[in-house]
Amino acid sequence: MNELSKLCIHTITTKPWSIEEAAQNYAANGVKGITVWRDALDGRNISQTGQMLRDQDLSIVSLCRGGFFPNSDKAKRKLALDDNRKAIVEASELGTKLIVLVCGADPSQSLEDSRKQIQDGIAAIIPEASAAGIKLAIEPLHPIYADSRSAINTLSQANDMTEALNSPWVGVAVDVYHLWWDPNLEKEIARCGKNNALLAFHVCDWKTPTTDILNDRGLMGEGCIPIRKIRSWVEAAGFNGFNEVEIFSTEYWKEDQSEFLKKIIKVYQEHV
Amino acid sequence: MNELSKLCIHTITTKPWSIEEAAQNYAANGVKGITVWRDALDGRNISQTGQMLRDQDLSIVSLCRGGFFPNSDKAKRKLALDDNRKAIVEASELGTKLIVLVCGADPSQSLEDSRKQIQDGIAAIIPEASAAGIKLAIEPLHPIYADSRSAINTLSQANDMTEALNSPWVGVAVDVYHLWWDPNLEKEIARCGKNNALLAFHVCDWKTPTTDILNDRGLMGEGCIPIRKIRSWVEAAGFNGFNEVEIFSTEYWKEDQSEFLKKIIKVYQEHV
Repeated sequence: MNELSKLCIHTITTKPWSIEEAAQNYAANGVKGITVWRDALDGRNISQTGQMLRDQDLSIVSLCRGGFFPNSDKAKRKLALDDNRKAIVEASELGTKLIVLVCGADPSQSLEDSRKQIQDGIAAIIPEASAAGIKLAIEPLHPIYADSRSAINTLSQANDMTEALNSPWVGVAVDVYHLWWDPNLEKEIARCGKNNALLAFHVCDWKTPTTDILNDRGLMGEGCIPIRKIRSWVEAAGFNGFNEVEIFSTEYWKEDQSEFLKKIIKVYQEHV
Repeated sequence: MNELSKLCIHTITTKPWSIEEAAQNYAANGVKGITVWRDALDGRNISQTGQMLRDQDLSIVSLCRGGFFPNSDKAKRKLALDDNRKAIVEASELGTKLIVLVCGADPSQSLEDSRKQIQDGIAAIIPEASAAGIKLAIEPLHPIYADSRSAINTLSQANDMTEALNSPWVGVAVDVYHLWWDPNLEKEIARCGKNNALLAFHVCDWKTPTTDILNDRGLMGEGCIPIRKIRSWVEAAGFNGFNEVEIFSTEYWKEDQSEFLKKIIKVYQEHV
């Protein structure tokens, strides 16, 4: 049995719950960390919400998500920068030191253009991130999202970009769902560890069959991802942060969320 | 305007048609090549079907598909080899010189094991392929299929395996749908050309959003794949074979297939 001191859950994993319900239930069941999706903060005083989480002894692991930099329309790229600066302010108010970047893509332009705009976008917000003491984690997304959600689709690309940006405020988030298939994964995890750039580790599982491109992620152990093996690579690379459970699932969102939380804790101990 | 001398269509693209209807309609509309899916041969004399295609002046570009080598059960791996040997016989009878391999995967075992079983499986059938004068094309599939349809997910992996097998009877099939997102694609296409191993080129498009993991491929021009750019890389690598239109689409299969064929020919001239 695994213990729970490194278990973090993303608010979106238990989407039917408000952040207050999530915090109370996570804490009551021994979960130690929470990653906050920005929609969970809607209509709330963010500083007070951060305090509410700390009052439950929850570490606020990261804010999800900034990014979505590329756009063939320059004015919209500027709006994206503004939104990322807003995310930095929100992260400060909330009291977390990390923002995860879902970098974005625009199917109306080339991947090369999108990639350049991502790098330029991150470079543009490093000063604000640095001033706020908040790191930015480039999350490479599965190639299935290359058309619309991220033109950064392998850890190799994220590492290349991190090295090119060459800032202590920029690193990567490793999510097993996006990267498990990559034959270069172990090598690239080690590379990112050497750069001190491995900032976050997300887990869930890949179901066979997967029936929805976005919202059919599996509970750990339910699919084919070698989660423990990948965790061992991440830890060998020096990472000692939280293991973050991030599951988008129409199916699980329909369940009683208290029962779902119990399942998460059980399979976390068995498979992570 | 492009001419049609290199236009090939896969029978599955117009799945509602029998192979006889497909052949007649393709030929009547100026299509010059056909790739035959094995299900299209069900219940037919294969040699006579091959003759029927040649009588319509259609080049029989390839037989789709062999492969599906990996299985954690050794007896099932043997059955897969038998089926691949059967495909070689079918290809001979049909009168084509190429079999496309959808290599397979087994989510109950590691990707490394599946990859080894693929390589061993191909090695096992090279003697029969060589005796029949039929080449085998490893088709890397999009990482979304790594759990179940192919543990070979990048052109780099297919090139590695081709080089390891080191046989004039083994090469690769490049399908833009599976590979368009890969930042190493141009380089790997050139590598595969240098090996004289680029055996087939498949086109369609990636729609945003894609609503089904298998059967929502787009017509060329309908999505974000830079088809002409990739075709230019393939031709720069020495490939001068057919451009094969392979579209799985529940939506298009519902249409009148004669109208759909007219659309294919139009967008082929505009976007390939």
